This record gives sequence, C-alpha cells and structure tokens, in this order.
Amino acid sequence: MERIYEISSKPLVGIIMGSKSDLETMQESMKVLDELQISYEAHVVSAHRTPDKMFEYAELARERGIKVIIAGAGGAAHLPGMVAAKTTLPVIGVPVQSRTLNGIDSLLSIVQMPGGIPVATVAIGKAGAKNAGLLAASILSTSNATITKKLDEYREEMTESVLKESDLGE
Amino acid sequence: MERIYEISSKPLVGIIMGSKSDLETMQESMKVLDELQISYEAHVVSAHRTPDKMFEYAELARERGIKVIIAGAGGAAHLPGMVAAKTTLPVIGVPVQSRTLNGIDSLLSIVQMPGGIPVATVAIGKAGAKNAGLLAASILSTSNATITKKLDEYREEMTESVLKESDLGE
Amino acid sequence: MERIYEISSKPLVGIIMGSKSDLETMQESMKVLDELQISYEAHVVSAHRTPDKMFEYAELARERGIKVIIAGAGGAAHLPGMVAAKTTLPVIGVPVQSRTLNGIDSLLSIVQMPGGIPVATVAIGKAGAKNAGLLAASILSTSNATITKKLDEYREEMTESVLKESDLGE
Amino acid sequence: MERIYEISSKPLVGIIMGSKSDLETMQESMKVLDELQISYEAHVVSAHRTPDKMFEYAELARERGIKVIIAGAGGAAHLPGMVAAKTTLPVIGVPVQSRTLNGIDSLLSIVQMPGGIPVATVAIGKAGAKNAGLLAASILSTSNATITKKLDEYREEMTESVLKESDLGE
Amino acid sequence: MERIYEISSKPLVGIIMGSKSDLETMQESMKVLDELQISYEAHVVSAHRTPDKMFEYAELARERGIKVIIAGAGGAAHLPGMVAAKTTLPVIGVPVQSRTLNGIDSLLSIVQMPGGIPVATVAIGKAGAKNAGLLAASILSTSNATITKKLDEYREEMTESVLKESDLGE
Amino acid sequence: MERIYEISSKPLVGIIMGSKSDLETMQESMKVLDELQISYEAHVVSAHRTPDKMFEYAELARERGIKVIIAGAGGAAHLPGMVAAKTTLPVIGVPVQSRTLNGIDSLLSIVQMPGGIPVATVAIGKAGAKNAGLLAASILSTSNATITKKLDEYREEMTESVLKESDLGE
Amino acid sequence: MERIYEISSKPLVGIIMGSKSDLETMQESMKVLDELQISYEAHVVSAHRTPDKMFEYAELARERGIKVIIAGAGGAAHLPGMVAAKTTLPVIGVPVQSRTLNGIDSLLSIVQMPGGIPVATVAIGKAGAKNAGLLAASILSTSNATITKKLDEYREEMTESVLKESDLGE
Amino acid sequence: MERIYEISSKPLVGIIMGSKSDLETMQESMKVLDELQISYEAHVVSAHRTPDKMFEYAELARERGIKVIIAGAGGAAHLPGMVAAKTTLPVIGVPVQSRTLNGIDSLLSIVQMPGGIPVATVAIGKAGAKNAGLLAASILSTSNATITKKLDEYREEMTESVLKESDLGE
Repeated sequence: MERIYEISSKPLVGIIMGSKSDLETMQESMKVLDELQISYEAHVVSAHRTPDKMFEYAELARERGIKVIIAGAGGAAHLPGMVAAKTTLPVIGVPVQSRTLNGIDSLLSIVQMPGGIPVATVAIGKAGAKNAGLLAASILSTSNATITKKLDEYREEMTESVLKESDLGE
Repeated sequence: MERIYEISSKPLVGIIMGSKSDLETMQESMKVLDELQISYEAHVVSAHRTPDKMFEYAELARERGIKVIIAGAGGAAHLPGMVAAKTTLPVIGVPVQSRTLNGIDSLLSIVQMPGGIPVATVAIGKAGAKNAGLLAASILSTSNATITKKLDEYREEMTESVLKESDLGE
Repeated sequence: MERIYEISSKPLVGIIMGSKSDLETMQESMKVLDELQISYEAHVVSAHRTPDKMFEYAELARERGIKVIIAGAGGAAHLPGMVAAKTTLPVIGVPVQSRTLNGIDSLLSIVQMPGGIPVATVAIGKAGAKNAGLLAASILSTSNATITKKLDEYREEMTESVLKESDLGE
Repeated sequence: MERIYEISSKPLVGIIMGSKSDLETMQESMKVLDELQISYEAHVVSAHRTPDKMFEYAELARERGIKVIIAGAGGAAHLPGMVAAKTTLPVIGVPVQSRTLNGIDSLLSIVQMPGGIPVATVAIGKAGAKNAGLLAASILSTSNATITKKLDEYREEMTESVLKESDLGE
Repeated sequence: MERIYEISSKPLVGIIMGSKSDLETMQESMKVLDELQISYEAHVVSAHRTPDKMFEYAELARERGIKVIIAGAGGAAHLPGMVAAKTTLPVIGVPVQSRTLNGIDSLLSIVQMPGGIPVATVAIGKAGAKNAGLLAASILSTSNATITKKLDEYREEMTESVLKESDLGE
Repeated sequence: MERIYEISSKPLVGIIMGSKSDLETMQESMKVLDELQISYEAHVVSAHRTPDKMFEYAELARERGIKVIIAGAGGAAHLPGMVAAKTTLPVIGVPVQSRTLNGIDSLLSIVQMPGGIPVATVAIGKAGAKNAGLLAASILSTSNATITKKLDEYREEMTESVLKESDLGE
Repeated sequence: MERIYEISSKPLVGIIMGSKSDLETMQESMKVLDELQISYEAHVVSAHRTPDKMFEYAELARERGIKVIIAGAGGAAHLPGMVAAKTTLPVIGVPVQSRTLNGIDSLLSIVQMPGGIPVATVAIGKAGAKNAGLLAASILSTSNATITKKLDEYREEMTESVLKESDLGE
Repeated sequence: MERIYEISSKPLVGIIMGSKSDLETMQESMKVLDELQISYEAHVVSAHRTPDKMFEYAELARERGIKVIIAGAGGAAHLPGMVAAKTTLPVIGVPVQSRTLNGIDSLLSIVQMPGGIPVATVAIGKAGAKNAGLLAASILSTSNATITKKLDEYREEMTESVLKESDLGE
C-alpha cells in the first residue's frame, strides 16, 4: 500500500480528519510537527461515515500513548466535539473551509461546545491547521523541556525572518 | 419516579434532546403529536455527555418500532447528525435557540451535514419544534391513511382559524 | 421532445426546482435515487413565475402517488415552503447556492418556516441535494423493507470506502 | 363583529400581513396613511396557512381598485413575494422582526427575489412599516397632485420638527 | 461625445449610479425598460464625490417629469437614501455587489432607512437591477393602462417560457 | 430656551447626531471632551430629514474653526459619510446601536466608504462614542502640546486604575 | 486589601481577563479548577490599558511555574492573542459575550489568529469559560495521572447525572 | 539592500502592516500620500511575530516626529489596537481582506475596541487603505494649510472626473 505522508511509529499526536479532501488543509499540522520533530499519526476518521471507528479511536487514544488529538472537519463539523466526548485528552479542532459558507459553519460547529466537553478551536483553514500543530507542541512542552526549546527556537526564527523583511532602510 | 410528561407505550416517534433545558422547546413537538394522537417517547440523550447511550438509542430505534426520530440540540449541536450517522431512519433536527448566538450556531451545526448522512432540519426554536412534530406526522402519513386524514383536518382547522381572524369587515 | 434526464413512469418522489439553472445541483438528488432504484420525476416549477402550476403540482401530488417532494430553490426561495402550504406530504427543501450571498439567503428562506407548515431542510448546494435524495429514501424506508435494505447497504458501502482510504499504514 | 382598526370603503392601498401578531408592526403603515388621508384596507392573509386566499387577493387587487399592496411577514417570509407573483401592481414588503434572528431572515426572504418578480422592500420592523406607508403614498403621488402636496407638507413638517429640536443654543 | 447607452428624450424613469463600475449591473434595469418601451435617462451621480449634483438631481427630478428614480450603489451605499431625502418621488435602491462583503453592506446601507424617508429596495446585483426596472414599470402602471398591458404580457411570456422548459415528458 | 448639555463658545470639535435618540450614546463623546477640557458643540443634524442643514454644517465647519467632526447615526447611517463628502476635515463616525440588527447595519453603512471619502469609524455604541472623543483629542494633539499632555495623563490614570483593581494579592 | 476570590499559592494555571466586568464569566473557569483541585491565580490584565503588564505577565509565566494560561476578553479581544505572542505556553482564549454583537466579535478576534501563534479558543461566554477550565485540566493531564483520574471521574459523574435525568420511565 | 518602495527621510506618517502579504493593499495608502506629497515611512511590524518591535515602534513614534500611524492587518488583526494602546497619536486601522472570511474578522478585530483606546477604522481592503491615506492627510490638514489646499484640490479633481464621465448627453 502506498503511503501519502510520513507516519512515525510512536506517535504523541494523533491527527484525524473527516474526509480525504481535508488532507490539503491538515498537512499544515503535519509540516509543523515534522519541523519540530514531534511524532504523529494521521488517519481519515469520519464522525458521520465511520462513527464506530471514531469512538474506538477516541477511547483508545490515551492508552495508546497519544497525548494530543488534532481533528479537522468542515461544514456541520462534528468530529472534534464527538472525539472530545469520548476522551479526556486535549482535542484541538480545525475548522476546514467549507464550499458554501467559507467555514463559518465549520467554526461554529466546532467552537460552540456546551459546558463539560472542551474543544481547543483554532482558525479556519490552513492557518488554523498550522497553529493546531504548534498548539499540540505547546501542550507537550508543558512537560517536555526539549519541545519547549524547539518551540522557543521556532518562535525566534519566525521573529527573525519578519524583522529581516521589515528592514526597508530609512 | 416522577414523570414530567406523558409517554405512550408503543411509540412511533422518538423525541430526544441534548439537555433538560431543551424541554421547553421540544414540548412543542409533543403537543402536536398529542393533538394528532401519534404515540411518542421522549428522552434526554446528550451527544457529548452520554455518547454511548446516544449510539445505542440510534442503533436500536428501528428494531424497537420507532419510525421517525426528532432530535433537538443547541450550540455546537451534534445530536441530530450523530444519531443520523447511526440509523437510516429519518432524523428531524430541531435547532434550539442558543444563549449567545440566537441559534444560528445550532442551525448551521445541524443543517450543514456532509453528503451521505441527511438530517431534516426545521426552524430555530419553538416554531421549529412544532413543525418537527408535524413533519414526523407527515412522514408517517406516507403509509398511514388515518394520519393523513388527521393531518388534513389539522391543516383545515388552521386555515379556518386564520380566515376567521382575518375577516375585519369592509 | 428531448429529455434531459431519465424519468420513471410511476414516481414515488417528485423533484421540482425553481429554475433550469438549479438542475446542476438537483441532479445530485436524482443520482442517489437512481442508485437506490427509487422512481422519481423531475420538473421545473417556479414559485414566482409559474405560481398556479406550483399550486396544482402540490395539490395533486398525493393522489398521483407521489410520497415525497424534493424542492430546490435559491435566493428568496419560496418554492419548498409554498408547496408545503398546499400538501401534507413531506416536503424536502434544498437551498441552492445563490450568486451573491452563497446560499445563506436560500437557507433562511427555506428553513425558518412558521409553526404549522414544516419543510425538511438540508444543506446548501450539492451536498444538500444528495442528502435530499437519501432523506426521501429514508422516509420511504419507514414502510418499505426493500428500501430499508438498500439504504443499509448504501450506508455500509460508504463506511467501507472511508475505512479503506483511511488505512494509511502504521 | 368588532373591528380592530379603521378601514376605508374605497381603498387605494391594500395592507396584508401573515399573522395577527404582525399587526403591532403594520399599524405604523396605517398611521401614516391615516395622516396622509389615503384610503386603505387591512387583512390577515397568510402565505402558508391561507394560500388560496392569498392568490385570490393578489389576483383581484387591481380590478378592485387597489393601486399598491403592502405585505408584512416574518421568518421565512413568503407573503410579499408570492403576492407579487400573482399581480403586476407594486408590492411593498415589510420584514417583520422575527423572534430568533431579529428579522434578518425576514429581510433576506423578502428582498432577495429572483429577476422577474420585484418586491419593494423596506427596513425591518416598525420603521420599515412606517416607510411602507410613505412609499405607497409616494407611488400614488406619481399620478395624484393632492397626495404629492400632502407628502411635501409631511416632509416639511418632519424637517421643521428636527430643526427645532436641533437648536441647542450656541 | 460618445454615448455608451441609449437615452430617451422625455424620460419617465431616472437611473443613477454611484460609479461607472456600477453600469454593468444597472444595464439590467435599462434592458427591461427598453423591452417595455418605457423612456429613461441614465447618469453617474455619486453621493460622495458629487454630492451637490446629487442634491440638484433629486430636487429637480419631479418638475423635470421624472416619475421614478432608480439608484444603484455599493458598499456604504448612500445614494438611494440621500436622493430619497431630497424628493418625494418613489426611489428604488439597487444594492450593487461589493468586492469584499458580497453586497450585504450595500443592502443594509440601503434598506435600513429610518422612519420618514423610504427607499424601495430590491435584491443585490443584477437580479435586483432587473427587478428595479420592472418595479418602476409597475409603479407607472398604477396610472397607465398601456404599461399595465405591457407588464401583463411580459409576465405571461415569462410564465410561458418557464412552462415550456419545464415540460420534460412523463 | 433650555439647554440639555454644556456647549462651549469656541468649539474645536463639532458633535452631530442623526436624531435626539442618539444623544444617550453621544454623551460619552461629550464627557470625554469635558474631562480633557476640549471645547465642542453638539447638534441634531439628520442626513435624511435635514439634508440641506447637514450640507451647510459640513461646508462651513472648517471656516468656523471646527477641527474635527464627530457624527453619530444608526441603521442606514448616512450622516458621517455625507458630511465627509462635503468637508476635508477629519470626520469620525459613531455607529449607534440599532434596534433590530444591533448596529451591524450602522457599522457597515459608516465604515464601508468608497475610496476617496474617508470616515474614521469607531466601535458600535457607547464605547465607540467615548473613543470618538478620545480620537478627536488625539487628532488635536498632533499640533497641540497641552492636549498631548492631557491625553497622556488620561491614559496613565486609566492604566493606574486597572493596575489597582488587578492586584488581587498572591 | 479585600480578595474577591480564592487564589492558590503555587498556581499551575494563570487566569487573566481584560476587565473586572469579565469576572462573572471567568469564574466558571475557577469553579471547575476548584472542583478538580487544580491550583490557579486570577488577575485583571488588559491588553489595551495595561499592555506592559500583559507582556511581563506572559514573559514570566513559564518560569513562574504556570503551565497553562486562560485569557478572557470581549469585543476587539486582543488579550489571548497578544499573550500567546509572548509565550510558548498553551494559551486558552475565552470570548466574553459583548454588549452589541453577542460575542461574535470576541470570537473572531480570538480564533482567527495568523499561522505561527496559536490560541486554543473555546465557546462564547460562560460555557466557554467552564470548558477553558476543563481544557486546562486536560492539558495538565497529559503529564499528571492524578489529574487524569480526576478528569475521568468528573466526566463519569456528568454522564451519570444526565443518564439519571434522562430516565423518564417507559 | 533593495528597497521595495520609496521612503521619505522625515516621515509625518508611519505606515505599518502585519505581514509583507499586506503590502499590495497598503500601497494604496502610499500612492495617495505620494500624490499629496506627504512624507511617510513603511515597515512590516507584526503584533504576533514581532511584538517587542511593535511596542517600541509605537512608543517612539511621537518623539520621532510621526504624527499619524496607519496600521494594516488581517484576520485576528491586533496590530492597530495594540499600537494604539502604546501611543496617544491617532492610529488608523486598515482591515486587510482575509482569505476565509472576506475581512469581516479583520474589521471586527480592529473596530470593536473597548472604551479608552480608539482606532480610526476604515473600509476593508484597498478602498480602505486609500482612505487611510486621505484620512491621515485630513488629520494633518487641521494644522497645515498647505495640506488643506492639496486635499481640497484632490477632492475637486475627483469631483470633476466623476462629473465628466457622468455627462452622457441628453
């Protein structure tokens, strides 16, 4: 079987998405985790089309060693919230931009969770997916000094690169 | 145990809602079904707080004799869509008016389902809940002449009552 | 006369749309019904440009043997609600994506029906039209074991196909 | 039979509304027409609950001597557009403020008419209903010098009253 | 000087627009008036860039024989409302689709007029511009039997053409 | 004649509002200017009901010594933009909260000005009106060291007061 | 000095809010952390009125032993994003319901962060604040078995309590 | 080092933007200032990626001779508000059109500032950026007769050019 992206063997982060068409967006999460050398796995898990697999995934995640779940979905996006209902691990929700309503439906379906079941929601689309990767790293950094150091370096490089392009002479 | 509303013994319609606070809205469905003498049952089933019960409810509904499910929920309203993911019975979604966004979040979370899993969505709030009851009756009417007759009478009475209040003289 | 799509002779489902330009969207309903081998007919019936024909269509539908009506329209979309006002059959409304407001006008014009006249609303655009076909099948399944079986198979195949594409190795 | 408001015997303006609960809003149209001494009639005519009466009303309006129709409705407000579909008289649509969405649903359902059937839409709620009365007068003024004079006086008085309250000394 | 569109010598309808870039939209009004053989004139008059000309245009319109003004504008669209503030002729406002917000800004800026100064608002964009032409004709028809007849014929032809394309066989 | 608020004799700032009902909001601008000891005048000037006065006000403002105009209005709020069309002084627009749409209509009608005529828009409602006063002061501070000093002090006091209430012990 | 709520001496969670008026909302975070026996501190830190203190707070948080920051703010809510710009700790943003726009402004100002600086956004208002507390616990649970256990128990009790109120007899 | 646009040596206006991708929009401000011969400087200063530089820029602006700051940003646009929090100079905020939500997020993040810290907000996108340049000139004109004259001429030329293109014959 052909793999479409790299999957590490002992993942700290589980990336799931409602449909293969979400992959273009969710690859931004993977790129960041690759850059920070944080292990992850990635799967298509659909709340509506594979509900049992979704529950199983969520239920087993913690004991499998997963520490953060990133879930991307669009439209009436139920994946992040339903996964959060089946685990007490932190779940990050990425609202994928929808065809008709630009992702405002995805955003509200993910962020407006009732009290009791939190989903850590990020921005609509690719910027959000990138930030989901960084947020996962940030969560891991609370108990991992190596990741803290990597994150700090990542941040400094980003600042440097903005400072450089900003310098337009006087 | 105290019952808060009448439940018939052989329900054709299953009414579920995400929280007891949705009852005030969902009672409009019950009133209409009572009026049309259609049997129903009503339960609090939360997508986020009782996910396993929700799946069980949806999975068993058809073999228990339920023919239509009415599911009301607010905010990031996942109940109707997740129930629809676990049954091929018709599922009617009622967007309950939410505190902060007036139910536009509930509406989009329910109606914007991806292709494959339909939810029959009605209006936000009490008008929607009332129409959910009528829609359930309408669905049952496709194979039940008695319900068709009752629905037709209900419609005629409604028309009559509007015609009467409209007559303002000349 | 040239036919632009297949029409069965004893339709259980009546598909109507406000304008020929809605056909691209509404063909998703037809494809699903074809796949499930459910008979249907399809017509352009405009609430605003052929109001009398619309009323006649709605009034005669039940006695003609139609069991579910699917009505697609965009903008100030009055077709589904007005058809529902003239029949007690279940009416499914498909909000067609509008040019200027992306279909949020179509959605609100269809879903926000007053108490008394229900319209079973689905998602904006093609996903919604596809789900309208599935919802019609689901309604028919409440009194038809063959359709129930076909629907269950359709669902299983959909699940299988997601499970297969999800399997990205370990 | 008790009348709830004055109705003139040879009305130039026909005011209709989808429900008696719209009367509080629509009375603003009546007040303005009373002030300008323009004859009108007022009826509850529901697009959804009395569709046949609505069609009859629209069809007969021109030959009955009505010159402008004002139609108020809320939510999925189909009354103005459907009346406009059945007459070539000018139809003014008043979006009544809805309970859940503040009338944005009413507004879009009325204003976003497809090419071919115009509805002259005014603001949501009481300000809109008042302006509907003034717009009707304005339309009549195109062929009636008395109404033009009355409208001009009305406008001048309004300007005077603002100028007076504006004078806050120096 | 080169003319870009036909202007009749004794116009009943005055068409104005905030910018030459609105012409593509507003030509829909002209086409309809041409078809109904109703005389009109067309000008660029900007509320913000030629405010004095706008006031002069509005003030002189009635005595110049204009009976209806159609005003198209986008964004913070002040033209229709400001013209309406300077004349008691009926003013039809066409919300031109804006680049960033799809015309929802144009619509709200035009339709939400305060009580006292009405603007007859139509749909966003070309459908609205077309309907503005038809609404102007409809207003003129209240005192002109020829225009009534032309409008009725226009409506019938429209209905016929929909009926023809609807007939898809059985 | 009774004055309802203090008006200074040589105003640097002109505060105008579309209606007396906007006064409750606009008093926030006055309070701030009082506090900073900046002279102002306040008038009701309606774009729609006193258009000529509005033009006169805008045209004369600069030669009368006014340096900044604050204009508050709600709904289809044309006052700030139309005043800006008649002066090259800086015009600050305050979107007054509207009854039906919470001021989103006011905001878009004020802020979405076409290129060529700027309006400096602030937040909806009282917070915006307060900031309009501060922004006027800030503009004046660009050529007035006393006002700069007063503004700096105002800012420091604000910071101090937050710091004090923040100190919740450890 | 009087304390208004309990502050633990070695806080794992730092709760900050833009204004004392946000306290009613943010107390929901505190209640949950109290219930889970997780230490926290709470401060008013305003992005706009105490920007330097905000930067200092964010910069020192990690070395002070804080592991998660919860930041609540309303309107143009810049606090969560600016704190996130100054630390690589996980920052949870709570959109406080705003007076005019119901918190949709708060939500978009917090969630739509550009790629590079993540904010974990929760629902608008009290439900969001409660979930912020749970999300903080969930983050801490990734390296703390006691908190995992407490969270699991909290979840089970919540499920139990819904199951109990759901049991309406048969 | 290569410069990408002209920067004057003694700038009165400081133009900053959150990212180099905002340059296409912000060049509209520069063009207008060039046309009016007003000196300016332009820098990339990111609220989130270079927060310290942003604070330094804002703190030093007044003593460096800057009189007005124009700040453009998109999405959760914090740059204008945070700069305004660190200076009492007038700050003009330009909401850059965002990819997913068309700039409505940028607009609300900039305009809905809390009382105490004003940002002079202009329209979304290029029209707004152009107007930001004009507003800066307008602010400078309050103490500079040359700029007043230039602005008046600019306005007159704009009016002339509209009048010319409007003249479509009779």
